[in-house]
Amino acid sequence: MRFFERFARGELRLGRMEAFSDGVFAIVVTLLVLELKVPALKDHASVGELAHQLLELLPKFLSWLISFIIVCKFWLNHHHILGLARHADYTMVWLNSIFLMCQSFIPFPTAMMGEYASNPLAVSAFGVVMAVNTLLFIALHAYILQRLIKPELLDAQAPHIIRKSFVGVISYAIGAAAAWFSVHAAFVIYLLTPLFFIVPPAKRSSSRPGAAADVPEAARR
Amino acid sequence: MRFFERFARGELRLGRMEAFSDGVFAIVVTLLVLELKVPALKDHASVGELAHQLLELLPKFLSWLISFIIVCKFWLNHHHILGLARHADYTMVWLNSIFLMCQSFIPFPTAMMGEYASNPLAVSAFGVVMAVNTLLFIALHAYILQRLIKPELLDAQAPHIIRKSFVGVISYAIGAAAAWFSVHAAFVIYLLTPLFFIVPPAKRSSSRPGAAADVPEAARR
Amino acid sequence: MRFFERFARGELRLGRMEAFSDGVFAIVVTLLVLELKVPALKDHASVGELAHQLLELLPKFLSWLISFIIVCKFWLNHHHILGLARHADYTMVWLNSIFLMCQSFIPFPTAMMGEYASNPLAVSAFGVVMAVNTLLFIALHAYILQRLIKPELLDAQAPHIIRKSFVGVISYAIGAAAAWFSVHAAFVIYLLTPLFFIVPPAKRSSSRPGAAADVPEAARR
Amino acid sequence: MRFFERFARGELRLGRMEAFSDGVFAIVVTLLVLELKVPALKDHASVGELAHQLLELLPKFLSWLISFIIVCKFWLNHHHILGLARHADYTMVWLNSIFLMCQSFIPFPTAMMGEYASNPLAVSAFGVVMAVNTLLFIALHAYILQRLIKPELLDAQAPHIIRKSFVGVISYAIGAAAAWFSVHAAFVIYLLTPLFFIVPPAKRSSSRPGAAADVPEAARR
Repeated sequence: MRFFERFARGELRLGRMEAFSDGVFAIVVTLLVLELKVPALKDHASVGELAHQLLELLPKFLSWLISFIIVCKFWLNHHHILGLARHADYTMVWLNSIFLMCQSFIPFPTAMMGEYASNPLAVSAFGVVMAVNTLLFIALHAYILQRLIKPELLDAQAPHIIRKSFVGVISYAIGAAAAWFSVHAAFVIYLLTPLFFIVPPAKRSSSRPGAAADVPEAARR
Repeated sequence: MRFFERFARGELRLGRMEAFSDGVFAIVVTLLVLELKVPALKDHASVGELAHQLLELLPKFLSWLISFIIVCKFWLNHHHILGLARHADYTMVWLNSIFLMCQSFIPFPTAMMGEYASNPLAVSAFGVVMAVNTLLFIALHAYILQRLIKPELLDAQAPHIIRKSFVGVISYAIGAAAAWFSVHAAFVIYLLTPLFFIVPPAKRSSSRPGAAADVPEAARR
Repeated sequence: MRFFERFARGELRLGRMEAFSDGVFAIVVTLLVLELKVPALKDHASVGELAHQLLELLPKFLSWLISFIIVCKFWLNHHHILGLARHADYTMVWLNSIFLMCQSFIPFPTAMMGEYASNPLAVSAFGVVMAVNTLLFIALHAYILQRLIKPELLDAQAPHIIRKSFVGVISYAIGAAAAWFSVHAAFVIYLLTPLFFIVPPAKRSSSRPGAAADVPEAARR
Repeated sequence: MRFFERFARGELRLGRMEAFSDGVFAIVVTLLVLELKVPALKDHASVGELAHQLLELLPKFLSWLISFIIVCKFWLNHHHILGLARHADYTMVWLNSIFLMCQSFIPFPTAMMGEYASNPLAVSAFGVVMAVNTLLFIALHAYILQRLIKPELLDAQAPHIIRKSFVGVISYAIGAAAAWFSVHAAFVIYLLTPLFFIVPPAKRSSSRPGAAADVPEAARR
């Protein structure tokens, strides 16, 4: 048996993989708020000083907001693509683990961008991490479509879905490049990218009407 | 197909949405305690100094207590309204995500109120965040009632349930306003609001007796 | 309908309650390690200095160990008593929430005892918190036995189970009192208490042999 | 009834044990990133200073990466061995709890190794903790195989599986010893050990063909 073929074996239960993934998503999303530290005031009762300090936190609030929406989008899409698989194998488990590793890394670039919003490297790194996350998601998605898809869903998969995901990669990469010219432009691009994907796709003009065509659209990005 | 109609499509499994939500609730509730930092003592073995420092933490303990009860109430009500839906669609997923985003934000105003309990802005912000959370919960609830409710529960929904939720919004808003005159009054209002909702509703005088009428009362706030 | 009777209504799904509780237990247990801070060294490469600093952390390691075992014991018993209930009602949900609130509080006294292991107040507070947790657990257990027990388990419940739980309350209280004379004695009592409960009970001399009698013994403390 | 036999009684539901374990794994894996602190810059907008500081964090990134892969491997194997058991008993619950305790401890040696990558004691401690974790995993695995295995899987268990796990123990121990001569060698060994186990085993030349032999291979390390 050839080396890489070993990874395509095994039938793992999807249930615990979903539970583990949901746990990681939920924790990542909630840990993000820990970066929002209560500011230190000289005069504890001063409204003006607190208001001023909270305004200074604005880049952190914005970073938190962007990351939260992005991770929710990843969770929703992850939910969708795991629903396509009939079971898991070794390769899928490890693709999923590496993807989750990079998801769990998100609080770091988020905190760094929030802390140093005027630093091109900090803002650019955020985009790079998100592009890498999207690439890993595409790898997981493509593997499921090629090797593990439920037979009844085979026909319903539009071939352009994955190509659409690359728009996300390119968009984050553009944001990462834009950061070197204008950090504000990068923030705008980072915010617009997930919003763009939140919009469900228009129903494609399908010659096959009915339920079979609807199921895979359920959670497509 | 019109733009906003796209969001009403799709049939997402409720199971993973509940798992993700439960994860966020559980983490929010548990992270709250991280704001309770062990005080720094000059004399490590001094009982008096530790007792004094713990008394100083009283506003933090109180903030933690209030937030814990509020988030538990939200969890209980969330549990209830997701039980009404026959499935999830895009709009529901995003209403839920935005609601969870504001839930996961709660540790920040909680910590700020605990740290600066004498600062009207800090105490008022807590009420505003809770009012916004309740509004987002109402939006999710209303959407499920209008579009996704299980057919068998249609008759059993009392129309005044959502109107009652607005009492919570108003109560938190009153607390947020009261904070500018008396932070103590605000604390009392914040504590009483969830306690008010903890009391299950009196059985409404229903003309339809029996099990069908009981189900939706299961977890009504 | 009388006021308190309202709380006994409703049939909540146990599934989400278990998911929420498991989440809180898992997070509490894992957050405990966050109190084990890596010591600050003057000479980063010095083995002697690091070894010395790690020895200084010994009370923190011990506090972490004791709390971990205690929370695991609570989780195991919680698992057991929720398995006795046929469904949940309002009272049970709120008894459970208050219990979980005090569980999620455990990292604070654990950190305080680890930090100030020579301070009687810090060591005593740990015992008080654990005694309160055990009391809240007894309340939840007693409520389920009285109002929500599955009919088929009614006969199999030994009446002395709850009385045995009070041994835990008394033991933690003794530890809390002992802390004022000897913190070392308190540590020993805190460590022995959960170990005592880890030992499953001897099979009681039952006149009814067989499976029915075995089920409730499943996770009795 | 003899003392230790008591622990072999009881039939606990595996579902909540898996939920609790998955929660702990997911939190451990996600907490690891909290050790990656955003560096403090004198000049917030300086790209050079940030780049320099991020390079200084390299040992922390590496520690995080190694720990993430190791915990994922433990999760995958844990998933596998719990799938072998027909139910849980007291001994299994406590073996599992002690294993999870040492899993939840992993963020501490990971942070210490990341902080003091040039300190032999810090690097060596990491290997010792991983060796202990593997030993505890072996104990859990062996207990399930001996006492709780599903009857239909009895024939399919290859006797050499557990012996293979000891390779992990020895490899981590070698890394822990190597740290005293070269911390770089230790890092390499720590990284290679889980990668070695990630490769699924070659299909053994089995005289029994077919599905029964495939099932246990599902998630074997």
